Amino acid sequence: MSGAVALILAGGMGTRMGRPKQFIEILGRPALYYTLRAFQEAPEVERIYAVGEAERIRALASASGIDKLAGCAGPGETRALSARNGLLLCREEDGTVCMIHDGSRCLVTPQLVGRVVRAVEQGAEGAIPVVPVSDTVKVAEDGRVLKTLDRSSLRAAQTPQAFRLGVLRQVFSAPEEVLCEATDDASLVERAGGEVRLVPGERTNIKLTTPEDLILAEAILAAREQSGSRP
Amino acid sequence: MSGAVALILAGGMGTRMGRPKQFIEILGRPALYYTLRAFQEAPEVERIYAVGEAERIRALASASGIDKLAGCAGPGETRALSARNGLLLCREEDGTVCMIHDGSRCLVTPQLVGRVVRAVEQGAEGAIPVVPVSDTVKVAEDGRVLKTLDRSSLRAAQTPQAFRLGVLRQVFSAPEEVLCEATDDASLVERAGGEVRLVPGERTNIKLTTPEDLILAEAILAAREQSGSRP
Repeated sequence: MSGAVALILAGGMGTRMGRPKQFIEILGRPALYYTLRAFQEAPEVERIYAVGEAERIRALASASGIDKLAGCAGPGETRALSARNGLLLCREEDGTVCMIHDGSRCLVTPQLVGRVVRAVEQGAEGAIPVVPVSDTVKVAEDGRVLKTLDRSSLRAAQTPQAFRLGVLRQVFSAPEEVLCEATDDASLVERAGGEVRLVPGERTNIKLTTPEDLILAEAILAAREQSGSRP
Repeated sequence: MSGAVALILAGGMGTRMGRPKQFIEILGRPALYYTLRAFQEAPEVERIYAVGEAERIRALASASGIDKLAGCAGPGETRALSARNGLLLCREEDGTVCMIHDGSRCLVTPQLVGRVVRAVEQGAEGAIPVVPVSDTVKVAEDGRVLKTLDRSSLRAAQTPQAFRLGVLRQVFSAPEEVLCEATDDASLVERAGGEVRLVPGERTNIKLTTPEDLILAEAILAAREQSGSRP
């Protein structure tokens, strides 16, 4: 079955990076190329929608053989409003599985895409990739430690996060202040009482945030290229 | 003033890495070399103690000009018991600032060492380097999301963590089951009601945990070498 859609958020301004992250070049290609390519290669994905600079994204897709790209929307003021813009592009029916993915997570793999899609097909209202948290996590207050959390129950959430399109249409109708408080899409579904299943993420599926992340992304992509797991 | 001591925990078995992390070679030298070197270069540090394979650590220090190394102890069964073994090496008075550091955080800088020492000298009972948490953090239960935490108040704790030696001697006298539940040293001080101050950590101060971390560590060390900030 399948025929899932992917909504790629590529409209961030890269505040901490100093420039829009999705177009930073890694091994000679924009980061967003690698992101789009993973969804292009995943057999579960039928169509890709993107939010960001439409002309630039279309040109990149067209030059790179990303023929699943089916539409682009302009970015909103925040990540959540960008996602809402993207949802408006989707014409598919409510039962379709829809992934929302941060364009700056350019090391996502087709395998990971497949895992989140399958988890939703098997009945979850949402499915998100997570990895264990390796640092001790503190709650801070006024420059001091308020408390230490129990690390064993913590998971770091990644994207793509997958849901039925109908669920997303419902939760994204919340007021803008609710949308903008959420740091990921799953938390909107959780807030509405939906069950979100955890699937194994990948440690290499990092979000480009700081210059160090670029160093890591380049090293990982170079290693994949050497091992032949990606052209 | 100063005359701080550093206790380097280098006895881990590297379960997730498949081999002891502190002796993995990065740019031709064992990871632990870079760790020791940062403390050697920090003017605030007077003596270094290490926990791990004593002969191997002494040989490394001696071959690398790490003349602050003042003693070694064998590892305990857990990280906390290793730290306790290390504390037994310290002959300094209770007022001395003592840092406990994971040997596998080999990208620590002398500047960061200075920051945590000064925070304790200025009156905190403990000082730890922290960085913001960039991923959304979930509490997991049975493979599902229990809740999403408010990311803005979360901080990821790093090492070195600094305390007065007297405070450490007191909290490490707790029963072994208490010690072994703690995922960092500061949490023992927090548990005893001590105030732990947060100082800015460094995103590059990663802990070698998985093979991807090695790729990143090598890239960062190579970049530092190129920029001349470290020989």
